[in-house]
Amino acid sequence: MSRKWLIKNGTFAVLDEKSPIVHGYMLIEGNTISYIGEERPEGVEGAETYDGKGLLFMPGLVNSHGHTAMSLLRGYGDDMVLQEWLEQKMWPMEAKFTPEDVYWGASLSVLEMVKGGTTTFLDMYDHMDQVGKVVEESGIRGVLTRGVIGLCPPELQDQKLAEAIRIARDWHGKAEGRITTMMSPHAPYTCPPDYIERFVQAAHDLNLPLHTHMSETRAEVQQNVDQYGVRPVQHLLNLGFFSRPSLVAHAVHLTDEEIEILAAHKVAISHNPGSNLKLASGVARVPELLKAGVTVSLGTDGPASNNNLDMFEEIRLAALIHKGVSGDPTAVPALEALRMGTEYGAKSLYLNNTGKLAAGMKADMIAVNTDQAHFLPRTDYISHIVYSAGPKDVEHVWVDGKQIIRHGECLTLDEERIRYEAQTAFEGLLGR
Amino acid sequence: MSRKWLIKNGTFAVLDEKSPIVHGYMLIEGNTISYIGEERPEGVEGAETYDGKGLLFMPGLVNSHGHTAMSLLRGYGDDMVLQEWLEQKMWPMEAKFTPEDVYWGASLSVLEMVKGGTTTFLDMYDHMDQVGKVVEESGIRGVLTRGVIGLCPPELQDQKLAEAIRIARDWHGKAEGRITTMMSPHAPYTCPPDYIERFVQAAHDLNLPLHTHMSETRAEVQQNVDQYGVRPVQHLLNLGFFSRPSLVAHAVHLTDEEIEILAAHKVAISHNPGSNLKLASGVARVPELLKAGVTVSLGTDGPASNNNLDMFEEIRLAALIHKGVSGDPTAVPALEALRMGTEYGAKSLYLNNTGKLAAGMKADMIAVNTDQAHFLPRTDYISHIVYSAGPKDVEHVWVDGKQIIRHGECLTLDEERIRYEAQTAFEGLLGR
Repeated sequence: MSRKWLIKNGTFAVLDEKSPIVHGYMLIEGNTISYIGEERPEGVEGAETYDGKGLLFMPGLVNSHGHTAMSLLRGYGDDMVLQEWLEQKMWPMEAKFTPEDVYWGASLSVLEMVKGGTTTFLDMYDHMDQVGKVVEESGIRGVLTRGVIGLCPPELQDQKLAEAIRIARDWHGKAEGRITTMMSPHAPYTCPPDYIERFVQAAHDLNLPLHTHMSETRAEVQQNVDQYGVRPVQHLLNLGFFSRPSLVAHAVHLTDEEIEILAAHKVAISHNPGSNLKLASGVARVPELLKAGVTVSLGTDGPASNNNLDMFEEIRLAALIHKGVSGDPTAVPALEALRMGTEYGAKSLYLNNTGKLAAGMKADMIAVNTDQAHFLPRTDYISHIVYSAGPKDVEHVWVDGKQIIRHGECLTLDEERIRYEAQTAFEGLLGR
Repeated sequence: MSRKWLIKNGTFAVLDEKSPIVHGYMLIEGNTISYIGEERPEGVEGAETYDGKGLLFMPGLVNSHGHTAMSLLRGYGDDMVLQEWLEQKMWPMEAKFTPEDVYWGASLSVLEMVKGGTTTFLDMYDHMDQVGKVVEESGIRGVLTRGVIGLCPPELQDQKLAEAIRIARDWHGKAEGRITTMMSPHAPYTCPPDYIERFVQAAHDLNLPLHTHMSETRAEVQQNVDQYGVRPVQHLLNLGFFSRPSLVAHAVHLTDEEIEILAAHKVAISHNPGSNLKLASGVARVPELLKAGVTVSLGTDGPASNNNLDMFEEIRLAALIHKGVSGDPTAVPALEALRMGTEYGAKSLYLNNTGKLAAGMKADMIAVNTDQAHFLPRTDYISHIVYSAGPKDVEHVWVDGKQIIRHGECLTLDEERIRYEAQTAFEGLLGR
């Protein structure tokens, strides 16, 4: 029999436009929210009761783009020109990554994410079986996708595509349904057009969404124009990419016409403000994208280009930078930024029953301790979360109805061991 | 006899260009650092010894511009056009502030600041005697200045100036020297020129620095041109403002010529990136200012326009936004951003013996717990602090050699009472 429990005296961020906050009760049965409202629900005999006083319950944060194993390279190279950073720092080290390195890097990242209130993440990387294991063990929800660079001989291309298909097929639905998968050619500038078309075909065959990096830098857009005569959006449209449900990361450099194409094809975007600023890629046209009806979610990108996995920071950056850059203080209001980090995140990952606190949704939920100086006075909880909250304000975390963080401590992962092994893995990489 | 204590096994952020980190020992005698180095110092017989393993010791953060009492209005109005926000939300409420409201608002802010690693702050506001009391009680270091709006009849102008002079004279050097003062006409657009000249004269008479808001918005710069025929920098120069040591807050909209004038007169700037973004004021020309040799420090501004007092966030924003907006990933490197939040902060406030860990400096210092996922691997502590640290990573805080935060708990202020009274004060304001 599945567990049935009732939260009373709770404050719930349901994030509806008119009344984003509900005070009262929430009933959870098994892994599903069955009630939220001001009145005590009927039929709660036998439910365990939990006093929610002093806590704000909100949907778990959704990190819609990243590369978890890159936590092993956090701080290994910063404040460098992108190409030098990649060629001198990242690529030589990443080439040495073993499956075990990926396991510990992913563990370190997942630990940081769950402690900071992230309940769902997308990971695009190599050695994805290791990341699948970490999802199983940690209790987090994960969208796994083998990111493939296709600038290699045909046999290697075939081998990588086959592996991406295997990962996507084998892991989809695993971990009691917490894992889903996508197909990911790395980027238009790292995959020949015919190779991208094979990923599109595979996504059709497997009935899965597609993911890729797109228009992160001005240089890469120019390269696309030089090489193929069109900008990346038209290029991917021509290759059939948008005939599948798809999510593109970054999308910093877009024309009005490209925004129209993305909106018309219901392409979702993972906006990565921290990474885009740090790597000097630019500021994405988020207010225009939202206005056009595009689903814009938020991602941290890899921890080597951020350098943290704090989704509160990405939410805050999304709310702040577009105001400052556009000169419009109403650009990306707090509630919209918070939805980008929750509801729109789930939508971007094509997950239909998470990302929101509502009856019928999965209990992917966090509780924030609001009895703190920076959440006072009690004026506007949405504003406080967006403009003042941080990862350590998260007191409890539940994914799929199961608690994985209690009073800030992780119940599923061995934190001390992970910290030790991650440091050891980094030192091993340096020594090889 | 003053206390003498030795930290061993410590990691110290001395922030020198060539070797920003020292591992080893620090000796503190009374309120002063007397030694930092790799070798155990001589003459430490009788010193208490403290094991610094797992902690990064760094200078306390310096918040060089704010209005602490405005924490009572945090979240009371957000995402609004500046003029509506001021006229409909802030000013009507601020007009009702009593000295007691200011006391509890300042207490709430100082509590948040010290817990988050800020050891020195500047406060420009009204009812400054209350803020002085909070500085005395909390143990923080404070620069107090009565910010005066001069758009009023001559008698009221005289009265406000007299009060600003009294505050500046009476509080300077108080709280065992932790309080210093400045003279502050609020802004060129809120004070007639002759009134600003009277503040300049008073600053000469008292031998104190001057502080003001300057060129925060494009509109206010235009208004200055329309009204006085010159932009604000030339205007203040003409009024003799820069003949005193001076600190201007914001300075978002500057021409090349204005940057030259500020550099030539050694005017310090308090850059407030969070507030400037949130209020859509724009992005200050920080890389150009630093290049010109201007001392640029960091401030949160008031908690109603930020909405937090987290100086790690301001440091991170300073390191991130100028890269993203300029397209140059080497703009405002991590070390420079960290100095802006510490050493340059102290320099901006004309405090000569704080802001840096070095022999002879005051022991204004914080210890960050680096045994955490987001500080791994141990690659680059400066990068980790700037790009990953948050207020709750602060384990201990000392000001003037005295510990005021121990394991995250404030030893000097009654946190629960302050939270209660601040909420009550806000409700009282709503009801009046």
